[in-house]
Amino acid sequence: MAKNEFVKEIADIHENFPQWYTDVVIKTQLVDYGPVKGTMVIRPYGYALWENIQRELDARFKATGHENAYFPMLIPLSFLMKEAEHVEGFAPEAALVTHVGETELPEKLVIRPTSETIICDMYAKWVQSYRDLPLKINQWANVVRWEKTTRPFLRTSEFLWQEGHTLHATQEEAEEETLTMLNVYEEFARNVLAIPMLCGKKSEKEKFAGAAATYSIEAMMLDGKSLQSGTSHYLGNNFSNAFEIKFLDKDGVLKHPYQTSWGVSTRLIGAVIMAHGDERGLKLPPYVAPVQAVIIPIAMHKEGVLDKANELRDTLAAAGIRVKVDSTDNSPGWKFNEYEMKGVPVRIEIGPRDIENGVATVSRRDKAGEKFTLPLNTLSEELHALLKDIHENMYNLALKFRDSHIKTVKNMTELGDAVKNGNFALSMWCGDRACEDKIKEEFQASSRNMPFDQSPVGTKCVCCGKKAKHKIYWGRAY
Amino acid sequence: MAKNEFVKEIADIHENFPQWYTDVVIKTQLVDYGPVKGTMVIRPYGYALWENIQRELDARFKATGHENAYFPMLIPLSFLMKEAEHVEGFAPEAALVTHVGETELPEKLVIRPTSETIICDMYAKWVQSYRDLPLKINQWANVVRWEKTTRPFLRTSEFLWQEGHTLHATQEEAEEETLTMLNVYEEFARNVLAIPMLCGKKSEKEKFAGAAATYSIEAMMLDGKSLQSGTSHYLGNNFSNAFEIKFLDKDGVLKHPYQTSWGVSTRLIGAVIMAHGDERGLKLPPYVAPVQAVIIPIAMHKEGVLDKANELRDTLAAAGIRVKVDSTDNSPGWKFNEYEMKGVPVRIEIGPRDIENGVATVSRRDKAGEKFTLPLNTLSEELHALLKDIHENMYNLALKFRDSHIKTVKNMTELGDAVKNGNFALSMWCGDRACEDKIKEEFQASSRNMPFDQSPVGTKCVCCGKKAKHKIYWGRAY
Repeated sequence: MAKNEFVKEIADIHENFPQWYTDVVIKTQLVDYGPVKGTMVIRPYGYALWENIQRELDARFKATGHENAYFPMLIPLSFLMKEAEHVEGFAPEAALVTHVGETELPEKLVIRPTSETIICDMYAKWVQSYRDLPLKINQWANVVRWEKTTRPFLRTSEFLWQEGHTLHATQEEAEEETLTMLNVYEEFARNVLAIPMLCGKKSEKEKFAGAAATYSIEAMMLDGKSLQSGTSHYLGNNFSNAFEIKFLDKDGVLKHPYQTSWGVSTRLIGAVIMAHGDERGLKLPPYVAPVQAVIIPIAMHKEGVLDKANELRDTLAAAGIRVKVDSTDNSPGWKFNEYEMKGVPVRIEIGPRDIENGVATVSRRDKAGEKFTLPLNTLSEELHALLKDIHENMYNLALKFRDSHIKTVKNMTELGDAVKNGNFALSMWCGDRACEDKIKEEFQASSRNMPFDQSPVGTKCVCCGKKAKHKIYWGRAY
Repeated sequence: MAKNEFVKEIADIHENFPQWYTDVVIKTQLVDYGPVKGTMVIRPYGYALWENIQRELDARFKATGHENAYFPMLIPLSFLMKEAEHVEGFAPEAALVTHVGETELPEKLVIRPTSETIICDMYAKWVQSYRDLPLKINQWANVVRWEKTTRPFLRTSEFLWQEGHTLHATQEEAEEETLTMLNVYEEFARNVLAIPMLCGKKSEKEKFAGAAATYSIEAMMLDGKSLQSGTSHYLGNNFSNAFEIKFLDKDGVLKHPYQTSWGVSTRLIGAVIMAHGDERGLKLPPYVAPVQAVIIPIAMHKEGVLDKANELRDTLAAAGIRVKVDSTDNSPGWKFNEYEMKGVPVRIEIGPRDIENGVATVSRRDKAGEKFTLPLNTLSEELHALLKDIHENMYNLALKFRDSHIKTVKNMTELGDAVKNGNFALSMWCGDRACEDKIKEEFQASSRNMPFDQSPVGTKCVCCGKKAKHKIYWGRAY
């Protein structure tokens, strides 16, 4: 019965994953399409998810010694030109402001696709001495990249993100910062989003336009494709040369500082949806779920039921649980389906018999069909433990799924079989771009990243058979 | 001695207030000028102030039943055209995106100067029934308005703000929301920024382009000028007509909902600076100060001093106080000046003798020259009380200053004298725009707002002498 309703509302996750995604994000009101092609409106339910992500990440950035700031969104086009690879990577999809009202501007302005250039222009003013280093700034902002094919959260013309930009006196310190922030992302994904990440270094082909090295966190989605969920770049002094950032070092010598940048975006919401969902809809990890527990009054017209539900809500809210009561006149069955689709981790039913027995009936979203009663007077503590358990169960499920979908491969046939059947392929690689291009062309799979553990799984390149230099993950990707 | 240093660094607040403002915002590193004319970079010290403002306001928005969301920044130019007054007000200063890379866009896009139009376009999709109302959404975002004359925080091409946009079934409910949010702003300014606000209704001339009525909070700066610090608009159904937002009401009739919008911006940082500063620099209200207390170790080289300072910092931080230790090798005198200029509410000196006596030496920024000792073991509690007292003292000082600079006037001579000498003028007014224009031309003063208490201070218009309809404030303004 409930099943049938879902069949109507959401495409089958196993039959048509892309349509399932679209149905889920629209029907749960996470997002809507904006009037300009490729733009999205992040609706309150989706934005609350983003606020929780922001709060958790921001605390981690501050704990690692970063401060927030805000740089202008409009960048002179000439700034982009200063770093050769950078302009090549970003100019074709850059939105240009040419006029104000009827008046043409003296110079074309670019809406930031990323802020390295404008931040470097300011850093050149601010940094004179080794005493001004390290400089560790983060920005929460919107950026615009005019993509041809767009999907809500995954790829949109405008999106929200954070971008960290740091300067250091030495290469070692900058490289350490690059990996520190990669690890912050990995830990956050694991402990907050319940998503296991593969951490590693990107190939030259896949690195950020202007970076010396790019590291990424890659997540496996339920269709076996990879979602690059965050990147951390070691920029060397490419930008500090181009923008003439210099500092007088302790030894009295004028030097260019070493730089990093790193970012994650609203794409993480896409990661959450596609790493955890099921045929019923969203399954939100408790530590970012906008509503962690929904209370559904049963036989709401009976005296005392709604009062008890509200009282329970106040108790749970006071204990720091994000909770709501649904007291609309929709049927309990309708509400069960609704909050399952919306991925609320815990459902609490409370009716006359529960009240009589001093209990509530509790169901968890991650284990459909399981129902149990818990005493009302200890529900806050029990619920905290339950949310923790749900988080761990979701993480373990995602980890098991991912690990059972990684295939170690020796040749192109095995690699093709692996990625076509929804797996990541792990192989050795010679390091040549030609092999990457060939794998892309034949199997629509790209190199994901090279794990830090480089213990070999063979000696020859999976593609050309020449001597291998790296161990690397391949996969189809968003 | 300290005095002399300041004379060098910051212009005299009494001699040249505009230059004092510029010196203070740049030298305390609140802000810097961006590379594109009229833009600003909000540096970490300024952004921390904004984060504290955001946190306090956001809690109040949520407590009054609003949710956050995010709408696209790029708006089709045709949307602006749909509301006649709105396009007239915003089109001339609108930044236009015409190209992506080399490709011309099919329609010109406007970077939002405000989001009524794009939000109404979405609301028309989302609202069908009275059950969908009220709809109460807020957005934190950047906006662009290409102003000719710009000053950091006060008027910049791009600024940060929040904009609330609500829809209601009835006119009464929308009007109530308009005033509720005005009151939220007033209460926030009073209890958090320590700034007394004059609340009232704007004249037709000064209202928002497209509103039925605009209400504002107006603050007096230390030069006697007014800073419009926030506005709340009752939009009637001007926009819901233009964008065809309709709902089926309980009575079965299809109706246009009534609408509000309301906003405050990074301009509030300008209000804080100019309502509270002095010849030494910033004087930050404790509840938004990025650093509430700075600990300065005295004779830092002596054993145990720095340890004790760090221990004290940890204790105070654990008690919820925003605190830092300055352990750089600058002299204590230099540090005293620096944190006075930066407006840190409380300075705590701790040296060998203090440690011996189990005390710290405390000074408050709002009462220069006053020093006293407080026992270390109860410093957290004492400091909370002290911060509260500093807040109240700053509020009372600002209130006293403002109230002593409001002159009730009967004719143009008195009005001119009042505003030229750094006062607000309170008078009766006939309600005609011609009188507003004349006062603007003769005295460079504009109508600020009409207070809710309309008990008359005369019977005739201050300008034309005809029968008065309103009591109204006049002033020179930012």
